[in-house]
This record gives sequence, C-alpha cells and structure tokens, in this order.
Amino acid sequence: MSSLVLTGATVLTMNDALDVLEGPVVVRDGVIAQVGGRAPDGVPSIDLSGCVILPGFVQTHIHLCQTLFRGAADDLALLAWLRQRVWPMEAAHDEASLRVSTRLAVHELLRTGTTSVLTMETVHGTDVVLDTLASSGLRATVGKCLMDRDDAAPARLKQPVATAIDEALQLRAAYDGAGTGRIRVALAPRFAVSCTRELLEATAAVSTTHGMLVHTHASEQRDEIEVVRAIAGMGNLAYLADTGLATPRLCAAHCVWVDEAEQALLAERDVKVMHCPGSNLKLGSGLAPVTEMRARGITVSLGADGAACNNRLDMFDEMRLAATLQAVRLGPGALPARDVVWMATRAGATTLGLADAIGQVTPGFRADLVAVDVSGPLTAPSSDPYSTVVYASRGTDVRLTMVDGEVLVRDGVHQRVDAQALGHEARAEARRLMRRAGL
Amino acid sequence: MSSLVLTGATVLTMNDALDVLEGPVVVRDGVIAQVGGRAPDGVPSIDLSGCVILPGFVQTHIHLCQTLFRGAADDLALLAWLRQRVWPMEAAHDEASLRVSTRLAVHELLRTGTTSVLTMETVHGTDVVLDTLASSGLRATVGKCLMDRDDAAPARLKQPVATAIDEALQLRAAYDGAGTGRIRVALAPRFAVSCTRELLEATAAVSTTHGMLVHTHASEQRDEIEVVRAIAGMGNLAYLADTGLATPRLCAAHCVWVDEAEQALLAERDVKVMHCPGSNLKLGSGLAPVTEMRARGITVSLGADGAACNNRLDMFDEMRLAATLQAVRLGPGALPARDVVWMATRAGATTLGLADAIGQVTPGFRADLVAVDVSGPLTAPSSDPYSTVVYASRGTDVRLTMVDGEVLVRDGVHQRVDAQALGHEARAEARRLMRRAGL
Repeated sequence: MSSLVLTGATVLTMNDALDVLEGPVVVRDGVIAQVGGRAPDGVPSIDLSGCVILPGFVQTHIHLCQTLFRGAADDLALLAWLRQRVWPMEAAHDEASLRVSTRLAVHELLRTGTTSVLTMETVHGTDVVLDTLASSGLRATVGKCLMDRDDAAPARLKQPVATAIDEALQLRAAYDGAGTGRIRVALAPRFAVSCTRELLEATAAVSTTHGMLVHTHASEQRDEIEVVRAIAGMGNLAYLADTGLATPRLCAAHCVWVDEAEQALLAERDVKVMHCPGSNLKLGSGLAPVTEMRARGITVSLGADGAACNNRLDMFDEMRLAATLQAVRLGPGALPARDVVWMATRAGATTLGLADAIGQVTPGFRADLVAVDVSGPLTAPSSDPYSTVVYASRGTDVRLTMVDGEVLVRDGVHQRVDAQALGHEARAEARRLMRRAGL
Repeated sequence: MSSLVLTGATVLTMNDALDVLEGPVVVRDGVIAQVGGRAPDGVPSIDLSGCVILPGFVQTHIHLCQTLFRGAADDLALLAWLRQRVWPMEAAHDEASLRVSTRLAVHELLRTGTTSVLTMETVHGTDVVLDTLASSGLRATVGKCLMDRDDAAPARLKQPVATAIDEALQLRAAYDGAGTGRIRVALAPRFAVSCTRELLEATAAVSTTHGMLVHTHASEQRDEIEVVRAIAGMGNLAYLADTGLATPRLCAAHCVWVDEAEQALLAERDVKVMHCPGSNLKLGSGLAPVTEMRARGITVSLGADGAACNNRLDMFDEMRLAATLQAVRLGPGALPARDVVWMATRAGATTLGLADAIGQVTPGFRADLVAVDVSGPLTAPSSDPYSTVVYASRGTDVRLTMVDGEVLVRDGVHQRVDAQALGHEARAEARRLMRRAGL
C-alpha cells in the first residue's frame, strides 16, 4: 500500500492531550505516519478543506444480521420484540439474507463514519457474516450468538452448550485475524434470559483460556431483570459475576437499570458498558446512568444496536442522543460534546481491547479515519468542532471514511458498493425472509 | 403559474381517511388539483420514483433569528441560556445578521422538508425578517417578541407595553398577507417571566380584536414555573388564562410540566401545544406528557425551536424523538409513527389556523409538498412508509420541497440559494455578531 496525505481539515486527534490541529494527516501502509507539520512532497493527496478529521467511530453494540429487519419490529418492548419478531426472523435467515443484511449494515456504517464494530450475530450462519466482513473493509469483532434456554425462543436458535461453544471456537480458528487482521472473533452469549448457568460458565472458561471478549446484553429492561432474578435468584450483574463472566473482557450492552452496588461491581471488575441511547428510547428501556458510570471510571462506549430497534446504524444519532439524554436526566453539561466524542472513539477502542491501535489520530495508530464536512449551511455557524460534530452534523455529512489506510467512502460515496442496487437487493431479500418467518 | 405533475411516488395524503395512494399528484396554480388517477397529458412532470410524497412539514415553534447562534449556547439550562447567551446575542443583532440568520434558517427548513413555520423573532428588526421571508418561498406566521420585564434581560430588549403592541400592529399592517399570502403576523409575548401582566392583558385584547395568533412559551422548565408563581401568585397556565390569553388562538410552546388540571385547562380552552423534543432534551427541560395531552384532544404539533438549543431545524429529528420519547415514558407504541406524521402536518396546520389550506395532499389544498427519497440503502428495507419516514429517514433524504406549487428544493438542492456561499456568509456574520455581543 502506498502513501496518502489528507490536507486542509481540522484534526480532532482524540489523543491524551485532546490536541486539535490544523495540518496534514499522512497515511503510510495503513498506518498514520504524521499528523500536522509540513506535508511531504510527491505524495498523492486528498483535499478535505471544510472538514473535521476524527478517528473512525467505534460502535460496540451492533447486530449486523438484524439490518434486514429494519422497520419490521416497531412498537414492541424488549421481550415481546425478541419473541414475536426478532427471534423468528433470525431463525428464518439463510445464507443469502445474512449476506445482504451484513452488506447493508457495512454500507451504512462506513457511509456514516463507523470504522469498527463489536457485533453479535445470530446462532447460525456467522461464517457467512465473517466471510462478508473479511472482504468489506470494516474492522469487526464478531460473535455468533450463544443461546440454550427460554421456551419462547425458536428451537432452531437453541443449542446444547458443547455445540454452541464448539462452533464459536471453530469460527475463531477459521476467522480470527482474517481481513488482514481486521476481523476478530468473540463469544456472544445473548443474555442471561436465554442462557443456562452452564452455558454462561462455559463461556467464562473459554474466555479466560483464549482471552476472548464476551459480548452480551445486561439490565436493559426491568422485566428482563425480574426474569433473571427468577432464574438465578440474584440480580443480573451479580449473576454474571457469579458465573465468572465479570472480567475486563466482558462487554455488557445497555446497563440501563444498574443500582449503586452494580455500578460499583462494573467499576471494580473493569467490565465495559455499551450505551445504546437510540435503542433504549425506541424499545422503551429507559435512560441509562451514563454520567454516574463514567464518574466511577467505567468505560462507556456507544452503539446503535440493531436496525430492528433503532432504526439507523448512525453514530451521529447516538452521539447527539447520548449528550442530550444526560442533559435531560441531570442538567445541561452533564455529558459535554467532547466527552461524547471520546465515548465514540477512545472508549470504543478500549472496549475492543484495541486502545493501542485505533481511536486516535496519532502517528503509529491504524489509519481508521473519518472526515466530516462541516462547511455547509446546515452546520453553520460553528465555533467548537466537538459541538458541531455532536449536535449539528449528520451521518450523511461524512465525506471520507478510511480503514487501515484504505479509502472506503469518498465524497460521500462508498467506493465498492452500488448503493442503489444494494437497496433493491435488500428489499427483495427481506420480503423472502419475512415469508419464511411467517410474518 | 402553470401546471406540474409529480409522478412515481407513494402519497401519504394525511387526509381524514389517511389514504395512502400510488399515483400522480397534479399541481395547478399553486393548488393541488388531483391526487391519484391518470396523469393529464401534455403537462410537465417530475419523476419521483422511490419517494414518498407528504404534506410539507409545519414547524410551529421556531426562532429564525437564533439560527446564527448555532453552537454558541451549549450546556446551559433555560434561564441561564437566555440571560447569559441568547438575550445578549439577540440584542446584538443588526439588519445584516438578522437577514443572514433568516436565510440560513429558511434554507435548512426547506432543505429538510419544512414548508410552514410559526416563528418568534426578537424584539427589534422583525421587518427585516419579514422582508426576507416574503421573498423566500417559505410559508410563515411571524411575531416580533414582546418583552417588558426581567432585570436580567438587556434593556434594549424591553419596551413599554404601548410601544411593543404598536410595533406588532405596524408589522401586521405592513406584512400580513405578504408573499402572495404566505406571510402572516402574530403576537409573540416571550413568556410570563419577561412580560408584565399589563403586557399579557394588552396582547390578549389585541388578539381578540384582530383575531391574531398568540405565540408564547409556557411551562418549559420547573424553575421558570417557580419564577412565574413568584410573580403572579399562581401557576403558569392559570396565569395565562387569568390574563385572557387562554383561547384557541394561543399557541404555547413546550408545556413539559403541566399537571392534570393544567392539561384539562388546555383542552377546555383549545389552547394549541407545540412540542419541541430536541430542545427539551438539550436544555434539560424534561419529557413532555404528549400522549396524555393528545388523549385529551389537545392539538399537539412539533417544532425544532431554535438552532441555539437544538442545534438543527430538521423535522425528521423532531419526529423520531417525539415517537421514541413517548416510548421511553410510557412504553413502545404510545405514540406510533403515523400519529407523529399527523402531528408534523395536520396538527401544525390546525395550530396555524390553516387546517383548510395546508397539511393534506388533497385536491383544493395549497400545493405545499415534500418528497422523501426512501429508495436508498440507509432506509432499506421498508415496509410501512410512516415507520420509514419517522424512524429511518433523514432531513437530507428530502428530494423535493414545494410551497404554493413552487419547487424550492429539487434533487436535494435549494433552487434559489448558493448553499456553500450562504454557509460562509453565516460564519462571517456570526463572528461579527459575537463580537458585538461581547461573547
């Protein structure tokens, strides 16, 4: 891979000093080689005047396989949403629908500035998702869903513990490090409602042995917590700790309903929390105590969750909501724009265990970058670039997205995808999937 | 004006039967002449395949003059936000800054599908705003701000009652019916905190005499309500009723903190409520009881408020938030997508007193229309068009905006405005204004 210079933009480095620089960003062999200073001569360049360059966004709670369910599961709360819609649709996935769902998600993520994801897929076919991702350019840590209980779940989605763990390890053997290292494999027990204690304990053991991330949901809605209490005789996070899962490798989506003791547990065990404000509103989950969790030192990152409950995969929506929901909970200023950008970049990188590789525009880091056009009238005037990005910009203002030095979106257009054709294909495939699901 | 046919789109008519049609929309002399059926021969047409046509959105609480304050007043609650930022900036406006602020707002509103607004301007210079609006193509009901109290307000923004009312009536005489009838003039007492009882009573009397709409803020934040209680010795809405303002012509923005008795008063007097969810979050105001107010038959419409507290003027953001905030308050389904589109169109038209003229795609109604492109991959798949528009679409998906039959935005581009130049102009003018304001 050759060198490239990005010129003319303001750079929000998101380094430890939170430097904001005017100057070129030089990319060489997929790595950030230089930030600021004088651009080297004779290197191809892209003019990004009027843009803000940021580290690519890291969405830490996504379900790529649910992108094809967009608009098909509105107006339901979590357990009904899962049992009546999402699980039947997941059970109806085949290779073709999984492939299109993944491609549709990847397009939207890259188009709106997300360069890395932590994603929980469904029980079957995750090899198809991984294959599709490996050639997509997106950086992804992927887990096949682990489930072995809940009478309301389709039989097809429940596997014996040994089968579930074995398949996850096969995926790890086949795909960890694929896509020139961009692809990694995680363990993804869905949530305590749909996993036996045996499955959770087996997951914890495998995570310890292989150092694999564990991606799960926890304490999203109050009735979910009551179900867990009935199953386990204790609170949701206490139960996860009791099964050995509460380690720095545990990535727990939502944590909307966590009391003081549970927050203390999350902090003490360095469990990572993924905040999904758009999903939390639409599913009626609640307003998460993000400010309090951050004050305890908990790493809180951001994710859109799935298109079935959002219905977008756009980090700009999540950033804006993250800030304003804390404002309405605790008062304006509770979560300033700059902290939200931190959550969307640095905290995401830490959650993925990639804090030394991504999340900063710093020499030596992977060249995962996004350029947001802030020159147009919809974001004018703008004084503070963090404010502009969080409160005024839209995902469609992304002009350039780069992963590992490769320009995947340029002038707002995905360089590898015929977007209109993809939309048509997704519609056709969704119709077939709905028929299979009997919906 | 000649005829035009819009073809190929799905039409959400928002008529009383909520008909959804496939078929042409024929526009003649600024009026909708035909919806569905066979397109007439020999009439120029615009192909809108892949789009949904809706009535143009009606934003009923806007401050055009604050568009130049975007990003300049983050992280403050209402009273501090007003006193430390918005009032000093309003007081620093001159003709040039008001003109650019208005043009910037108009561009954003039309670009993102809003065709009508109810707007509260500042105390001075509203003739400049009205001049600018008259030639803008936007439909607008405009009030100069009426203020005569609050020690924390700049002296320049406070006027004797007679002066304030007299100026409002002069604006009415000069501009009501301008812009071929698109422009109307309203009375706009800011809120009970910054108006004496005398001013509120005088406003009520003039409203009765001339049938003018009264545009105000009410019960947005709890400390505001306490200030009103200290001034008036009663609750905010009781006070407005006591001054004679609680009539069907009263348009009360926010109403976040209204108890059962106040909701009953609003319903009984047919006071119109304007819900501003984006502003309510960012200023930390609260979650308004929209579902309960609608259940009582109160007309609740939507507005972005100002760019100083939003920081966008995009109805798509407000629609999505309106739906999802009620979901998190009361459970998913509390405010379905179709009801939100009703609020954004029909309820807005009713609030403006224009229910017979706008808000529906129905023959005989003014041709205020918007076409939203739902064919792209970011909104795919889509089954229910209301869900797509409310949950997945963005303001920038608007392909065409028409007011009174005139195509103002086509292929996503404002036909009269050099958008990039406007952005630059706005930035320069904002810098000058901030210097004048000493900020």
